[in-house]
Amino acid sequence: METTSDEMQEWLKSGDSREYFELVAFPTVGADPSRLRDCVACATWLKKWLKGIGAEAELVLPSARGVPEEKTAALSVPVVFAELKGSEGAPTLLFYGHYDVQPADPLELWETPPFEPTPRGYRVYARGAQDDKGQFFAFLCGLREFWREADAEGRMRPNVKILLEGQEESGSTGLFRLLGEPEFRRRIAADMMLVCDTSAAAGLRPAIVAGMRGVCHFTMRLEAASRDLHSGEFGGIAPNAAQGMCELLAALHDAKGAIAVEGFCDGIAEPTPEELEAAAAGAASDDEIKAEIGTEPCGGERGVSAVRRGGFAPTIEVNGVHSGYGGPGSKTVIPCEAVAKLSMRLVAGQNPRRCFELVKEHLRAHCPEGMRISFPEDSGLSPALRLPLGSPAMSLAEEVLSEMDARGPVFRWEGASIPVVAALKETSGAAPILVGWGQSGDRIHSPNESFSVRQFLLAKQWGKAVISYAYGITRG
Amino acid sequence: METTSDEMQEWLKSGDSREYFELVAFPTVGADPSRLRDCVACATWLKKWLKGIGAEAELVLPSARGVPEEKTAALSVPVVFAELKGSEGAPTLLFYGHYDVQPADPLELWETPPFEPTPRGYRVYARGAQDDKGQFFAFLCGLREFWREADAEGRMRPNVKILLEGQEESGSTGLFRLLGEPEFRRRIAADMMLVCDTSAAAGLRPAIVAGMRGVCHFTMRLEAASRDLHSGEFGGIAPNAAQGMCELLAALHDAKGAIAVEGFCDGIAEPTPEELEAAAAGAASDDEIKAEIGTEPCGGERGVSAVRRGGFAPTIEVNGVHSGYGGPGSKTVIPCEAVAKLSMRLVAGQNPRRCFELVKEHLRAHCPEGMRISFPEDSGLSPALRLPLGSPAMSLAEEVLSEMDARGPVFRWEGASIPVVAALKETSGAAPILVGWGQSGDRIHSPNESFSVRQFLLAKQWGKAVISYAYGITRG
Repeated sequence: METTSDEMQEWLKSGDSREYFELVAFPTVGADPSRLRDCVACATWLKKWLKGIGAEAELVLPSARGVPEEKTAALSVPVVFAELKGSEGAPTLLFYGHYDVQPADPLELWETPPFEPTPRGYRVYARGAQDDKGQFFAFLCGLREFWREADAEGRMRPNVKILLEGQEESGSTGLFRLLGEPEFRRRIAADMMLVCDTSAAAGLRPAIVAGMRGVCHFTMRLEAASRDLHSGEFGGIAPNAAQGMCELLAALHDAKGAIAVEGFCDGIAEPTPEELEAAAAGAASDDEIKAEIGTEPCGGERGVSAVRRGGFAPTIEVNGVHSGYGGPGSKTVIPCEAVAKLSMRLVAGQNPRRCFELVKEHLRAHCPEGMRISFPEDSGLSPALRLPLGSPAMSLAEEVLSEMDARGPVFRWEGASIPVVAALKETSGAAPILVGWGQSGDRIHSPNESFSVRQFLLAKQWGKAVISYAYGITRG
Repeated sequence: METTSDEMQEWLKSGDSREYFELVAFPTVGADPSRLRDCVACATWLKKWLKGIGAEAELVLPSARGVPEEKTAALSVPVVFAELKGSEGAPTLLFYGHYDVQPADPLELWETPPFEPTPRGYRVYARGAQDDKGQFFAFLCGLREFWREADAEGRMRPNVKILLEGQEESGSTGLFRLLGEPEFRRRIAADMMLVCDTSAAAGLRPAIVAGMRGVCHFTMRLEAASRDLHSGEFGGIAPNAAQGMCELLAALHDAKGAIAVEGFCDGIAEPTPEELEAAAAGAASDDEIKAEIGTEPCGGERGVSAVRRGGFAPTIEVNGVHSGYGGPGSKTVIPCEAVAKLSMRLVAGQNPRRCFELVKEHLRAHCPEGMRISFPEDSGLSPALRLPLGSPAMSLAEEVLSEMDARGPVFRWEGASIPVVAALKETSGAAPILVGWGQSGDRIHSPNESFSVRQFLLAKQWGKAVISYAYGITRG
């Protein structure tokens, strides 16, 4: 399974790689309003590419009717929608991917600029090299190859619908709104849905995702005095927002690391023994995780296995906390304000809105004296996804992957979320197949993200194979 | 005591104000290495000004012998030292001030640029308008006026030594090192020491500082994984440095807001009933503080009065905490690192080095699993100062201030620190008099710092009067 130097050289000369470098160079940070032009340019590039392979393609924006003017900006990142007509009476596949990427900061930790894709060894380094531009584009290259061959050979082809959004990393605002439009829901109706945005197992053994956690992000602001105060003059007198924020965030978990928010874990659907066994078989060991992350895998509740903590238990994580001075030397200040970025990961049985309300209630109840708490931003509110083992879609994926790799696939219950997948499953009526080719060493969401040529070629092979098999599935 | 429009106009036309605007325009952030050139330029400007009033003046740098090369930069901010020779056999005064200022951030909260002194109403707005450039320069304008008049009239004059440093806000590194040089100690020997860097009471009633807290600043870094991780993939598995930092900082205080570090408060010299009574008489009420800071004065230990909490009790404050994402939208990251800026204020009876060691020990003992703690920076380690009521220096100040203002002075035990004053008292042999003209509305250390013309004129009057009276004091 090792990439060879020849394979790398050949790939670097291919049209696939040339186009891939172009695609990854767009700085499509969907969460950052100043990157809107780049998102539109990238979406336009994708539309053209899809037309090039014979699809009808267009950029779609949701209606802004009834949306307050200050919130319409979030609806301006276009969704790319395309259709390839298959054989008469063929079943319909819906492929979903996202062309937006995480912010690239801290920039100083990148070895090469994040939006200048750079080959080094058998990998290409860039923000989005893997997540999700690399994965979805490799898949689409496989689709292109299948389509050309089937066309030339007169083979039967399924209908393929392609949906690429630009806000997956920031809550899929625009796409969620589109999914509320009946006309759009009709357009995306399908029998099976394919998503290539997840990870393979160790050694690039194929993995089928049988579950994903839901997610909700929010921002919390804590305000104390009306301005920053001198820590000598007012120390011991005025309340300190940095200190208060720390106490507040510390109160989210108990001494055992369990979530301390009352009612938050009520109703959680525990995994079946079959699911736990399959999850353990496909999971990395504590030692492997330790080697990967550089410290003990001791997050979450003590006394619970990593397999359960990572796939079947919810989290409340501090994604960032900022208050007061952070420059060189010292500044004798009592900060008047603190801001935290938080996210929750939710599992089957948890209602996202109820969980968010419980967390806000808990935080308000623990708000330190003399301070005011507010929640100026939130996004997501996506429920978890749990897919039954043994369904027709699962069986198809198992069959294709067993042909690709004699080891056969493992099943995984991912800790990560693709918030829109649960909603797409609901609105399109399609059965999801989540198979992706990420590796944790790809450093997605971190500096120096990368994707190897081997991963690219596997994603492409998977795309080509699963589409060619899919003609045979029963229509939904 | 109100400034009149005429008074303001007259002052704006004076040489004092023209020079004051020049002085305040130097962006002398002593803690910021990129501002070294500005500090040198400001010190040079001061040397020239002092020569202009007839003093011998020079810039002094401590010897860097034995200092590791990477630490010599902190010794490059010059100390300004000047001497005015008085009458034969006259006593010697040492005047201390600092020309460095706090960093100006957050810049966006300034109504006018921090280093463009701007008159508005009866105030001048700029970083350093008060602390300490405004205060020491107004005092020196009073000295100049006395000197000229005494020269013209042939009056007896004390010897005056003037010491202006550029690192007060960041630990007085260079000056502390100079104080270790026997030659420099001989040069600053004096009978009485004057410092104009503190506050007056409400309504600009004069205030004599009878105590100041000591201080120690330090930076703490907490490291978990070897890089930022995806909060979905590793949420519940990897330890989170932002969360860990919050837990660690929350552990510095108990549920009542008292310092939880064992042994930290041992040996504290409690105030005498006389001191407590005088302090209460000179202190603002809780309602006045609330109006001033915009929230309840509920910092520090519950059940202890604000007078005790602000003047006679130590603090450990979080001056800043930074970890992970803080930009627009969200970023699904588990931060691998967190940095906190902390400071302690110490009272009489506490040994700064011992306190710092106890705090580090406490933090290490509470370091969350899977994380590493380090203390990359510290400065200060200055003990508290408590000056006996009724000493000759105190009596002189009381007499001069009672002539200036019929209400007479109040006595204050300040929560703030001038770390170098305790050391200067020790090395110069001089008895300190700390009288300043700040008001908490001056917003020192905050955006939109300012100093009123009335305050400037009072500081000048005080400088002129105390120096003219000082000839009569007994030589030490």
